Amino acid sequence: MENNKIVYQGVAGSYSYEALINIYGKDCDKINVDTFEDVFKAIENKTAKYGVLPIENSSTGPITEVVDLLNKYNCYIVYEKTIKIEHSLLAIEGATLDSIEKVYSHPQGFLQSKQFLDNYRQWEQRPYYNTAMSVKYVKEANKLNYAAIGSKNAAEIYGLKVLKEKINTNDANYTRFVVISNDCEITDEANKISVSFSLPHVCGSLQKIINVIYIGGLSMIKIESRPIFNKPWEYRFYVDFEGNINMKKVQGVLNLIEENATNFRMLGNYIANI
Amino acid sequence: MENNKIVYQGVAGSYSYEALINIYGKDCDKINVDTFEDVFKAIENKTAKYGVLPIENSSTGPITEVVDLLNKYNCYIVYEKTIKIEHSLLAIEGATLDSIEKVYSHPQGFLQSKQFLDNYRQWEQRPYYNTAMSVKYVKEANKLNYAAIGSKNAAEIYGLKVLKEKINTNDANYTRFVVISNDCEITDEANKISVSFSLPHVCGSLQKIINVIYIGGLSMIKIESRPIFNKPWEYRFYVDFEGNINMKKVQGVLNLIEENATNFRMLGNYIANI
Repeated sequence: MENNKIVYQGVAGSYSYEALINIYGKDCDKINVDTFEDVFKAIENKTAKYGVLPIENSSTGPITEVVDLLNKYNCYIVYEKTIKIEHSLLAIEGATLDSIEKVYSHPQGFLQSKQFLDNYRQWEQRPYYNTAMSVKYVKEANKLNYAAIGSKNAAEIYGLKVLKEKINTNDANYTRFVVISNDCEITDEANKISVSFSLPHVCGSLQKIINVIYIGGLSMIKIESRPIFNKPWEYRFYVDFEGNINMKKVQGVLNLIEENATNFRMLGNYIANI
Repeated sequence: MENNKIVYQGVAGSYSYEALINIYGKDCDKINVDTFEDVFKAIENKTAKYGVLPIENSSTGPITEVVDLLNKYNCYIVYEKTIKIEHSLLAIEGATLDSIEKVYSHPQGFLQSKQFLDNYRQWEQRPYYNTAMSVKYVKEANKLNYAAIGSKNAAEIYGLKVLKEKINTNDANYTRFVVISNDCEITDEANKISVSFSLPHVCGSLQKIINVIYIGGLSMIKIESRPIFNKPWEYRFYVDFEGNINMKKVQGVLNLIEENATNFRMLGNYIANI
């Protein structure tokens, strides 16, 4: 019997949950886990078929823990979905901006609402597992001096009221989510390729790879570098570019990257809104 | 009268303090401020001549807040120094591993000690301003169930004892510090150039820049991308490469980068241990 479960990190009302609902619908068979790594483990041990993970925020940059886990586990990216992030300040019925003393949220929630929070420097900021869990926690704590930063969607699910909506500094605040799976699942419509690799410590080695993509006529969408454990100042690169693996030029580019890099991995060829 | 003050973020015993002492000696005229941005402000308003800031850790990657501030303020990088980071678990006299319930540190302190902390999942992790301030706080709190993650150096300064030394997961754990100033201060010995720029939304625009550095025969040390506020999926790039501005090929490369990029900035040409 095939397992079609979808796994996400956090609880109902998180932005990952929102992305999942957006892709698979409210009635899909979903499970939730505590950490990003647990999502990868659930895919690896086949507890779930697909996992939904945030990989980049348009204001604060990559979710580096997820990027690093993509290399640690042998799964593939099979889909991509971008979600608009709007944070609100949420509290229990009866609370006001004046009664608040402690605010709970994911550290990204604080970062993304910095301008608003700068007006309330007296509030203690308490980092929490994720935005939705902080909403749930503030509801359960039931204290007039507690607030959470999260989505209106989460407020509705857990029964908090909105003290102040759209407190995110940046009105154009999006998070890019990826869906991971054990199978590569490439379709003819796939238009984005993600690869990762490390490089020999030789002058011009990265420039060579980027040149290969350029000469292949492929548009590079993103390049990211991450440190390699126990090898100071050596990096693992994550590069996204346009293309479908059925195209000859894409095959040529992938072959030449693999030839010139070390520990090369094709992380996926999937549909993205480029 | 010339102001020769050196400014750093945090308190005595922080890794920034260690870097500062390492570069300028114990007897230099130093001042400390609360945040990374305060360091930039102190340079801008001439409260201090030099500022010492962490910019990259070899295990966890860039200190993105500092990278972003480099673009916000008009200062230059004038020097670079790498410091080995060794974290210890510190507590008051009488405390033991069994008595600890809450651990205070900078979020990087937790990240870099993750493997050790995974053995003590019952401990509550409380993010704090920086490692040294968490050491100071735990000393002042004077509680047997509190611990801090910081340097042995900080333990000595504030009077905590070492419960467990070298708890950092990675034995090869370094932080790269930069010194910033209002003047560019380029010497003949300068061997590293940092530039930043954004790019027109045109296929191959980044590849072109990297090609220019390659054709100029200059070794690229590092490339980093950071999101641009309010422009989703557009990036500002930070590129480090070898060279001295007196070299003709370096001038050529800089001219061609400026020509092909937007909002180009030369962030400095300084001595680094490459």
